[in-house]
Amino acid sequence: MKKHNFSAGPCILPQEVLQQASQAVINFNNSNLSLIEISHRSKDFVAVMDKAIALVKELLNLPEGYSVLFLQGGASTQFLMTALNLLKTDGKAAYINTGAWSDKAIKEAKKLGDINVIASSDDKNFSYIPKGYTVPTDVDYLHFTSNNTIFGTQFQEFPEVHGDSLLVCDMSSDIFSRQFDASKFDLIYAGAQKNMGPAGATLVIVKDEILNKTGREIPTMLDYTTHIKKESMFNTPPVFPIYVSMLTLEWLKKNGGVEWIEKVNTAKAELLYNEIDRNPLFKGAAAVEDRSKMNVTFVLTDESKQEAFDKLWNDAGINGLKGHRSVGGYRASIYNALPLESVQVLVDAMQKLA
Amino acid sequence: MKKHNFSAGPCILPQEVLQQASQAVINFNNSNLSLIEISHRSKDFVAVMDKAIALVKELLNLPEGYSVLFLQGGASTQFLMTALNLLKTDGKAAYINTGAWSDKAIKEAKKLGDINVIASSDDKNFSYIPKGYTVPTDVDYLHFTSNNTIFGTQFQEFPEVHGDSLLVCDMSSDIFSRQFDASKFDLIYAGAQKNMGPAGATLVIVKDEILNKTGREIPTMLDYTTHIKKESMFNTPPVFPIYVSMLTLEWLKKNGGVEWIEKVNTAKAELLYNEIDRNPLFKGAAAVEDRSKMNVTFVLTDESKQEAFDKLWNDAGINGLKGHRSVGGYRASIYNALPLESVQVLVDAMQKLA
Repeated sequence: MKKHNFSAGPCILPQEVLQQASQAVINFNNSNLSLIEISHRSKDFVAVMDKAIALVKELLNLPEGYSVLFLQGGASTQFLMTALNLLKTDGKAAYINTGAWSDKAIKEAKKLGDINVIASSDDKNFSYIPKGYTVPTDVDYLHFTSNNTIFGTQFQEFPEVHGDSLLVCDMSSDIFSRQFDASKFDLIYAGAQKNMGPAGATLVIVKDEILNKTGREIPTMLDYTTHIKKESMFNTPPVFPIYVSMLTLEWLKKNGGVEWIEKVNTAKAELLYNEIDRNPLFKGAAAVEDRSKMNVTFVLTDESKQEAFDKLWNDAGINGLKGHRSVGGYRASIYNALPLESVQVLVDAMQKLA
Repeated sequence: MKKHNFSAGPCILPQEVLQQASQAVINFNNSNLSLIEISHRSKDFVAVMDKAIALVKELLNLPEGYSVLFLQGGASTQFLMTALNLLKTDGKAAYINTGAWSDKAIKEAKKLGDINVIASSDDKNFSYIPKGYTVPTDVDYLHFTSNNTIFGTQFQEFPEVHGDSLLVCDMSSDIFSRQFDASKFDLIYAGAQKNMGPAGATLVIVKDEILNKTGREIPTMLDYTTHIKKESMFNTPPVFPIYVSMLTLEWLKKNGGVEWIEKVNTAKAELLYNEIDRNPLFKGAAAVEDRSKMNVTFVLTDESKQEAFDKLWNDAGINGLKGHRSVGGYRASIYNALPLESVQVLVDAMQKLA
């Protein structure tokens, strides 16, 4: 029996995508060759790349003037690349610190220049999204993390920048999960392994006109321009992760796109948060107004019930519910591909505990 | 019918590996979860990583004191990382230029310091391996490319370094294809997508004691030490490419390891080169003494026969025989997983042309 997979990432993908991917590993497009043993410059794979890029543009309703890249190295490499490509040699940047990943982005950028952490929720173990901060008018860019996987918080409204400042966002764990105005952003990056596909590909969406203005010499592989010029084929791209991402985006489009999944995700989140708020045995870990619709963090109000609860959800076929060590308790990651039915199974287990 | 796949990379993998990989995409280790939807920190995936590392050590007979890493970004990222991690701020390095990939490595390193190209075969379009050069005694390291995929040349004997100089090699296209003394090397890197697995993982083998001696501040993701400390799990690794690499190395070990495959590869290369030398319609493109046992480059002596030959091999179910644009003619990549039978099919087509 298929598990109810609440894993925080790599995470659940649509079952039909897994079936198609499995087939392609044996025989891709009826070519009698495996997807993973053909040239990335073959007609068949170039078509995959083109389609993946077109789907990103369509699903996010990207205006003209943006490039879509599929790179390697994860969001962790983007912590470096964003600063290298956007921070002027004598410039400065603003960062909002909402948890472990923002913090790593800040540490990496600090090696390159003047980094101003304009807001942080580290005073309460990142259980909320900072508000009421002022974005300086003289920064090269503002960087923030839209959803915080570990702590279960999510920006409900996005910060805005002024003048020539650029807006940069790490959307690794909530891209393609809700509608937003992409034209407000200058650069968005996301590791594939939540709502887009398997680990090993990183999506970068970048406004072309913002590049080549820092005065820095950038190593070839870390320069967005390298990959824009070669349409993500400067060197051999991660063929399988890109293919599965393409399939997942196709699945999303076929079912109604981001507008559709946002409704599904809202329904899943409401079902689970309602139970957390209703059931006296549980308590949410994040500030109510900042709750994530991707990662629902919660704790038991009576820790002596832990063994009983763990048995209940394990017996129900649930996987991946353990909270991150820095928060404790439980984390239900309810990404795009997780069906409402799986959330209901979890809610049933929570009710049985009572 | 399965094709005879002579693709230069990504390239043929063992059929049983493709079957196992395909199965794991649906149901990995009978967990009722896909390999690509589980946490990389799960017991099951950590076991994959550990096994992949152990197999590399065993198959290459690595002595103590080396770390084995599975990274992202391809050999192209290693062009940068090797220089960043090994070239002292006021140091210098020697490079041997044997083709397009060496050339890229040189260009990247030149941005960081004093790079001395001590030998090059660019005078004859890289159709041979330079000999008779002197390796300086005062360089931080010597870098060379053991096999040149595009030009079909391969080092038959490896260069040696003196004193404290380190020996660094890009073995992307011939690692695991022949026996060699790994203890002579300080750092070896290889993109997975030839003899090890699918695109998206890069193998790095590094002697621990050589690191942290340059005086440079290295960005986190580009610092080998980062990945050594976290056993290639500093951030989410490319799960699927690593898994398939592990399966391929398992296949190699089961069949007799590098000693066995070297014999198979020699038999395949001899069969094909013998035909090239015997058949007046064909001519080898690389110097005879430097011929690669991985990539066999050859041309027609009578170009008017091209259409007829292309039809012959296409009809025989052969894939990926077209030469690289910078050499022309044909390139038969006969990597580890290509069976002798496929080479015979190609030789038959060459004989039919007569």
